[in-house]
Amino acid sequence: MKLYTYFRSSAAYRVRIALNLKGLDYDAVPIHLVRDGGEHRTPAYLDLNPAGLVPVLEDGGHVLTQSLAIIEYLDETRPQLPLLPAVALDRARVRAIAQSIACDIHPVNNLRVLQYLGREFGLTDKQRSAWYRHWVETGLAAVEAMLANDDRTGRYCHGDAPTLADCCLVPQVFNARRFDCDLSAMPTVLRISEQCAMLEAFRQAAPECQQDAD
Amino acid sequence: MKLYTYFRSSAAYRVRIALNLKGLDYDAVPIHLVRDGGEHRTPAYLDLNPAGLVPVLEDGGHVLTQSLAIIEYLDETRPQLPLLPAVALDRARVRAIAQSIACDIHPVNNLRVLQYLGREFGLTDKQRSAWYRHWVETGLAAVEAMLANDDRTGRYCHGDAPTLADCCLVPQVFNARRFDCDLSAMPTVLRISEQCAMLEAFRQAAPECQQDAD
Repeated sequence: MKLYTYFRSSAAYRVRIALNLKGLDYDAVPIHLVRDGGEHRTPAYLDLNPAGLVPVLEDGGHVLTQSLAIIEYLDETRPQLPLLPAVALDRARVRAIAQSIACDIHPVNNLRVLQYLGREFGLTDKQRSAWYRHWVETGLAAVEAMLANDDRTGRYCHGDAPTLADCCLVPQVFNARRFDCDLSAMPTVLRISEQCAMLEAFRQAAPECQQDAD
Repeated sequence: MKLYTYFRSSAAYRVRIALNLKGLDYDAVPIHLVRDGGEHRTPAYLDLNPAGLVPVLEDGGHVLTQSLAIIEYLDETRPQLPLLPAVALDRARVRAIAQSIACDIHPVNNLRVLQYLGREFGLTDKQRSAWYRHWVETGLAAVEAMLANDDRTGRYCHGDAPTLADCCLVPQVFNARRFDCDLSAMPTVLRISEQCAMLEAFRQAAPECQQDAD
């Protein structure tokens, strides 16, 4: 398998965690989103993924996009160490936590959105940081409530083994720290994120461990 | 089943389509996102869903959030007329199309984001419309490429029966029209959206057919 990835991309980070948790080997193809105007904007990359986003997974000649869709595909085709629980209600909960991050927090703070706010509306770095922190803090407060008020939460977001939800939580907490967000009201989020950091699969997927880190 | 919904919410609209496609009865509980400062901000609603978002589905006392997670849950627990294909690669494609809309387009243009842009940065209606159109047109152009360049596209986004992808596409096209987006470069998106509009399940789920439409 081949993963087109950018070390700092939250969505690529999720897939790297999932691949590691399942013990799957892959070749990383770095796509730098900033250098030279962005390697994701080259015709070759747009041929691969017309959305011009990372990650892309190539598996036996098949091209897959969208981090959550990729992780569910990996889980269906390599069912060892499942990343989704067996029962429909539990699967719905894990997906809802994952989507609370992947739909409600991350897209609003994506690099291209921050670039647009600066370029088109002339917003300062300070204003864009306030924007970033607002959506992370609002969104992670909701995730904290989902985790803290549900006895299905265990050592990880759902029970005592990592799931798709943890694959999303850890990159989001990484980004929150990078932008100095206030996470003091989110003890469960922090506890689970520290629990994950004890696993090699999460550590090896971190931005600073990638070959393209700068 | 009980669906907490707002007639104009794109995410609630997706779930209404899915429920109708599967022929499932439900009680609609309208949550007005604008009136009186927003009924989604009341303590009672935040108890139900700490994220303060619609939709929420109640099924036999269980509370489910996040539109895509809800639709997958419905598909797993009521497998008649499946909304996801049987084969993993096809499922990944349907989910990727759905997520290209639900992650890459919709969240950036959500009501609360538009409100923030006005309130915090003083952006005018004209600037916010330009923002809206930019993300819809960029995002739907990517969806158009995914659909137009893949022979798995049929009468609908994937094959000749509606899937999760169509549940997401139709509300997004509805919103695009509402904000006068330029869809002229997206013939496949438009063709499929017209095809869907011929089905009663999609028509009955439309905002103007909801009891809370104003």
